[in-house]
Amino acid sequence: MHFTSERRLDDGVLERELTLGEIPGILWTPASSSEPVPLILIGHPPLGLSRMYPRLAGRARYYAAEYGFASATIELPGSGDRPRWDATEEARADLRRAMEAGEPVSDEIIDALVLPLVDKAVPEWQAALDALLALPEVGGPVGYEGGVISIGVRLAVVEPRIVAAGFFAGSLVPAVMFEEARQVTIPLHVLLQWDDEGNDRQAALDLFDAFGSREKTLHANMGGHTGVPQFELDPGARFFARHLR
Amino acid sequence: MHFTSERRLDDGVLERELTLGEIPGILWTPASSSEPVPLILIGHPPLGLSRMYPRLAGRARYYAAEYGFASATIELPGSGDRPRWDATEEARADLRRAMEAGEPVSDEIIDALVLPLVDKAVPEWQAALDALLALPEVGGPVGYEGGVISIGVRLAVVEPRIVAAGFFAGSLVPAVMFEEARQVTIPLHVLLQWDDEGNDRQAALDLFDAFGSREKTLHANMGGHTGVPQFELDPGARFFARHLR
Repeated sequence: MHFTSERRLDDGVLERELTLGEIPGILWTPASSSEPVPLILIGHPPLGLSRMYPRLAGRARYYAAEYGFASATIELPGSGDRPRWDATEEARADLRRAMEAGEPVSDEIIDALVLPLVDKAVPEWQAALDALLALPEVGGPVGYEGGVISIGVRLAVVEPRIVAAGFFAGSLVPAVMFEEARQVTIPLHVLLQWDDEGNDRQAALDLFDAFGSREKTLHANMGGHTGVPQFELDPGARFFARHLR
Repeated sequence: MHFTSERRLDDGVLERELTLGEIPGILWTPASSSEPVPLILIGHPPLGLSRMYPRLAGRARYYAAEYGFASATIELPGSGDRPRWDATEEARADLRRAMEAGEPVSDEIIDALVLPLVDKAVPEWQAALDALLALPEVGGPVGYEGGVISIGVRLAVVEPRIVAAGFFAGSLVPAVMFEEARQVTIPLHVLLQWDDEGNDRQAALDLFDAFGSREKTLHANMGGHTGVPQFELDPGARFFARHLR
């Protein structure tokens, strides 16, 4: 892992762009800390880091400034500046066709769209975790938050260093991920947009029900996919504060 | 309204027992305040104030000490030290029989149990509000929180001085209340216990969906009726802080 740029933001948070092999990413760390701080991995939909930057940086800076956490994110396969990745192109086209025609999105499309992404992204996030935890300023424990929820579910199952996760129930979930959800046992904090145009509410409630975790909390709010209220930022941070200290 | 006792608690909060005609109640106010403070009415199930006291006082003291709010509650008809009230006795017996037999609770039982209580309790809470707002140390705006959720729904519809409400989706709700729920437009913060033994989860979700409010948030947590996690106390208080300031 190499840092390619760094700047000190006006709240004192240090923002560093990085590359992990070919994968770009960003690390945010608190203004000052005398010892290694907990880390939150911030997931996001496959829309490219530069497009997602304002939302990701807003959360990361809040976590750093208010709670002293480091946060990091990496680009997903086939997104942003990474090389096109054909594995899911056909499924994306099928999804667009179905949505434009107002048809239900078939299980086959969802599987073809999400499962290869999960299979490829999860080891990359784990490699990023290896590199980040090797930095003297970053310690543990580690949390994961954000969509793609299927990536978060897989990480929660296979990556023991992740001890708590905040999910955003806002993406299509393959049926097989419900089985993996039952294997999740870490504390969960799940956001649901009640009127999410791209997300089936009942499926999201069923997934929440399926998680095997003894502590899991669902925060549902009105509005569409991108309308998560600003006031949900702090409860999410407090969830991590309870579990990463 | 007359105060019958007062004591200063160790966090500085002033707790006063009161009577409003024949109705006992309790008022908690912050240690000190130079101007009238917002008021939260704290509702509760018809189990008697003395039995409910620890839970009610815990919330009221937190609201006073951390956010500077006054809180008040009154006894429900037929509960605690108030005279027995026969209107719902038969329905209670029917409910017990149904639950002991493991049978579903019929709409008739729910209506007979809840509707007379709502009809009688709501004007009492409004009278309490008149008296409380006449105190120099209590101003507005006013919030309502807690169960019985049907009492809260009716109050949210008929009482314009209540500008925000926190409900606990933990009681049987008459079908007619779903119609009233559609008329609720104030901001809502709803708690749901996912495995509530006495409450139908789907009915609770349907009721949340029915509320007409543009801002409504559902916080669902694992566990049974009385298992609301301690960490939900502050998000509830912050909800009121957003709307009562």
